[in-house]
Amino acid sequence: MAPYPHLERISSPADVRALERRELTTLADELRAFLIESVSRTGGHLSSNLGTVELTIALHHVFNTPHDRIVWDVGHQTYGHKVLTGRREAMGGLRHWGGISGFPRRCESEYDTFGTAHSSTSISAALGMAVAARARKEDRHAIAVIGDGAMSAGMAFEALNNAGDMDDLNLLVILNDNEMSISPPVGALTKILARMLSGSTYNTARRVGEKVLGIAPPVAELARKVEEYAKGMISPGTLFEEFGFHYYGPIDGHDLDALIPTLQNLRKLKGPQFLHVITRKGQGYKLAEADPILYHGVSKFDHTAGIETGKGGGKLTYTQVFGDWLCDMAKADPRIVGITPAMREGSGLVRFAQEHPDRYFDVGIAEQHAVTFAAGLACEGFVPVVAIYSTFLQRAYDQLIHDVALQNLQVVFAIDRGGLVGADGATHHGAFDLSYLTCIPNMVVMAPSNEDECRQMLYTAVSHPGPSAVRYPRGGGTGVAPQARMQALPIGKGEVVREGRRVALLAFGSMVGVALDVGAQIDATVANMRFIKPLDEALVARLAADHDLLVTLEENALIGGAGSEVARVVDGLAARPRMLRLGLPDRFIDHGDQAQLLASVGLDRDGILARIQHSLDIDATTKS
Amino acid sequence: MAPYPHLERISSPADVRALERRELTTLADELRAFLIESVSRTGGHLSSNLGTVELTIALHHVFNTPHDRIVWDVGHQTYGHKVLTGRREAMGGLRHWGGISGFPRRCESEYDTFGTAHSSTSISAALGMAVAARARKEDRHAIAVIGDGAMSAGMAFEALNNAGDMDDLNLLVILNDNEMSISPPVGALTKILARMLSGSTYNTARRVGEKVLGIAPPVAELARKVEEYAKGMISPGTLFEEFGFHYYGPIDGHDLDALIPTLQNLRKLKGPQFLHVITRKGQGYKLAEADPILYHGVSKFDHTAGIETGKGGGKLTYTQVFGDWLCDMAKADPRIVGITPAMREGSGLVRFAQEHPDRYFDVGIAEQHAVTFAAGLACEGFVPVVAIYSTFLQRAYDQLIHDVALQNLQVVFAIDRGGLVGADGATHHGAFDLSYLTCIPNMVVMAPSNEDECRQMLYTAVSHPGPSAVRYPRGGGTGVAPQARMQALPIGKGEVVREGRRVALLAFGSMVGVALDVGAQIDATVANMRFIKPLDEALVARLAADHDLLVTLEENALIGGAGSEVARVVDGLAARPRMLRLGLPDRFIDHGDQAQLLASVGLDRDGILARIQHSLDIDATTKS
Repeated sequence: MAPYPHLERISSPADVRALERRELTTLADELRAFLIESVSRTGGHLSSNLGTVELTIALHHVFNTPHDRIVWDVGHQTYGHKVLTGRREAMGGLRHWGGISGFPRRCESEYDTFGTAHSSTSISAALGMAVAARARKEDRHAIAVIGDGAMSAGMAFEALNNAGDMDDLNLLVILNDNEMSISPPVGALTKILARMLSGSTYNTARRVGEKVLGIAPPVAELARKVEEYAKGMISPGTLFEEFGFHYYGPIDGHDLDALIPTLQNLRKLKGPQFLHVITRKGQGYKLAEADPILYHGVSKFDHTAGIETGKGGGKLTYTQVFGDWLCDMAKADPRIVGITPAMREGSGLVRFAQEHPDRYFDVGIAEQHAVTFAAGLACEGFVPVVAIYSTFLQRAYDQLIHDVALQNLQVVFAIDRGGLVGADGATHHGAFDLSYLTCIPNMVVMAPSNEDECRQMLYTAVSHPGPSAVRYPRGGGTGVAPQARMQALPIGKGEVVREGRRVALLAFGSMVGVALDVGAQIDATVANMRFIKPLDEALVARLAADHDLLVTLEENALIGGAGSEVARVVDGLAARPRMLRLGLPDRFIDHGDQAQLLASVGLDRDGILARIQHSLDIDATTKS
Repeated sequence: MAPYPHLERISSPADVRALERRELTTLADELRAFLIESVSRTGGHLSSNLGTVELTIALHHVFNTPHDRIVWDVGHQTYGHKVLTGRREAMGGLRHWGGISGFPRRCESEYDTFGTAHSSTSISAALGMAVAARARKEDRHAIAVIGDGAMSAGMAFEALNNAGDMDDLNLLVILNDNEMSISPPVGALTKILARMLSGSTYNTARRVGEKVLGIAPPVAELARKVEEYAKGMISPGTLFEEFGFHYYGPIDGHDLDALIPTLQNLRKLKGPQFLHVITRKGQGYKLAEADPILYHGVSKFDHTAGIETGKGGGKLTYTQVFGDWLCDMAKADPRIVGITPAMREGSGLVRFAQEHPDRYFDVGIAEQHAVTFAAGLACEGFVPVVAIYSTFLQRAYDQLIHDVALQNLQVVFAIDRGGLVGADGATHHGAFDLSYLTCIPNMVVMAPSNEDECRQMLYTAVSHPGPSAVRYPRGGGTGVAPQARMQALPIGKGEVVREGRRVALLAFGSMVGVALDVGAQIDATVANMRFIKPLDEALVARLAADHDLLVTLEENALIGGAGSEVARVVDGLAARPRMLRLGLPDRFIDHGDQAQLLASVGLDRDGILARIQHSLDIDATTKS
């Protein structure tokens, strides 16, 4: 690493507070350069972190952290915060097995006051902290730093609505407005924020406001109201002031001379305060400024040359398989529409959005709305495909049950990131979807074992007149190229992919590959179950009749997962072989390489073999 | 029933459209009288239905239903709609077994375009319908009718944010502003709506606006902006116009002469329209006007005398047990705070709110925020108790996982309405909570078998330094009075409440009572398992060793429920008795009396006995 003389003297925010104002600029330059170099070596989120360098320094300079609480929404802008709070050297292990997380975590540092990763939780959490401080009469600030994308989620609105109603709290919401979420921003709020910025350079706004009032008619009550709205119009916080916040800004979020005095003033005020800060994703790194989406989340790269694009050429990811299928399917079937809650890139919808702009709906970070909006379309005979990550579908669980499944509407859920995702860690592992989906009546739930099967399952979902989900993992498949031809699979039918004896492996989705390895090793039967729901009960019965041990394999929590339904079928049979359920253990699993993580929970070849052997040993002991 | 000469001639909305304007007033009077008489005989929602009589008539008079789509948010204001759409005679069976639902249902009528019951889904669904009509170039209106309470949910905001961004849709949102949800309204939005009403009688508002503009300074650009905001201020839709809607109102929602011409005009306009209608809950029935909360949801009563209050004196409901416990607990422990998403009455928090106003938080219909707000408080050492219905917790599933459980924070979930609730039906049955909760790491999940155990479990939750849930059913308990003394139960320990032989019944929560009946009948062992998670594995092992058949009993979906974890423990044992899992089947269950419903799914005494006998017969056949 290059030398960073100022940065290396910072071991905690107290050192930031001890610096002179002019030294902070140098610190910002070094911190930015350090982040570029460090992230280029480890991979991670880049654009968003470059956008918050000055804000991070200013917050730790002005506020008394960790006594004052900063809650970073989403949290992929906290690398600078990590560096300033004693984790500079730990940045070399960022997002790697055993290293620090890419998100704030309470167990990692007292400066990480609230773990985040899913969007739009910060105002709620900070409000809870502010209410606690008020109750204990503690002089403590609670600060939520939230992006304009995250602000579009209903949850943020719920929190504003609640907070604006309490006027005696030390709560500061900082809107980090960079005019984008991961994808370009959508929705009416985007336009509102744009209107706030148009027609006036920010810092002169208030003076213009005063001028307008000077020439307003002196009709007392009306004048007061006009003043209120003229102020709302020009200094431009109408929307947030309507919610009971005192609005300030917008100010330049890369200008420490604007940030520091403003924060110092705000620190003295009581009641819910709202500061609007304008930043640029990728700020200070030309390549990221030019393409903040490309530099949003990066693998290791050469930071002087930049990211090489268009390399690829290897195996398709499941995300790509889905994206290609959706384009093909839309061409073949006019009923198809695609819906994403602000994850155009992550969900593989870039080409679909280009080819079918009128059938593509990015609804913002709004999972609840996305699902019920899909239900409304389905009522009218459309077939909406909701592209969503496993853990983000948790945000729309009630809508899935109450609006889609209960009405038995045909909505297709293309669930990406099912199973262990790797570097993003516990907040992003799709560990629970099979459990939370299979208990819902009317649902069909599938998991593909390869890329072609993924495509055929998606087609099966479109052919099925009810709700269904296809759940596939993050990253590359097994290399089985999807066939152009689409054919529906028989609902609820699995297939035996290897005939063996004594032991039968009932594998779901991503576990079929390793099951075949294990099967070859011990001459076991292997079934690709394909459907978690409805389960192929006839196949289970057949395997139970012919084998001494049934092993279920799934990349989902063992509790409530696919194995538990297999067991229920077996319990109803006359002859019951011994059961071994393998899946994710009942704990949250950290970040790391996907293969490492699977091995850590015993779902690699060796782990599975060992547990089967153990089970066979017990059985032998019992029988002897 | 009294005679209703005009109403009896209405067999579909076409008949409403054929009436003269002056006849509509008579129709409204009859419809209101009919609703009071009918609901007093069947029970059901009253106040909200009396508030929408005129709006319902006006909508069906002006719009071409069912070609035009009306989506009724929450849906407990649709009795008038049901009466006018061919279900007048069916109202006698409202909410009863085999009768019509208390909510709109697509399977019940083509006029019920979207099933509702949980709040705040209507704008999303109507937007989906409007987008579908646009895509097909169909001349069709989509109308969402939503209350001011429902508007506080984030989901409604997400939908507004998405809809306001599309300017070529036939979408009409009608805000039915009655200044309350089921509980009195809370949050900043309430104040915004109140400001909209203050300072001007509604219909003259626009003219005042013009006057202001007449004297505004003629500085072109500024004048335009002042106009915009002055209009926002006085005609008062600023907030909704910010979101891209054209705002109209407020108008008197009980005045057909205001409603009908306004709707006729709106019908001609394109783009997202927003109509603000003021109504009164209970309108036209003095008793309900005076106490709309008491008359919100009613049992059968004498409609001339009114509801007799203060009768009671029978068994406590679990809701009351919870409410009393919370008051006692708060006195004993200053860390306790109570949080409700707008269900003060339903969750038994009325007394707590009076006794501890500073520790009581009604956050509005905002389940997502409620849970993360609780997490923020827990970070600071408070012990938040989130009082919530089983099905409404589905709205905060991600927050429960990501913000509470992952951080292992001590938040207590007091989950009411676990299991079959009765007359509210499929949308309200707490059928899935054991499945969706037990798969989450760190959770402790309990279900009491009687009122005292409920109290002790709630205390246990407060004594446990992590997330926990106590899940109890709707309605009365078994009559075991809660003891004043509170004592924590050992975590993860069940108890044998009856020693028998051959068959062991492992009962969870509400099923312990019927298990004891069954146990006495067939001399079976009965265990009150108490903890769904962590499960008492030692007890399961002991029962497995001593019995031929283990029967699990739970009032939750069989899939992923308590029985599936019992089975997993049994699968790991050397000697495995036969298992029989009893619980809710894999389908949505309709409304009706709770006992009827339980019998319908075989969870009454006779049903359980029959299935045990069947299982024993199979076993005998297998062994012979």
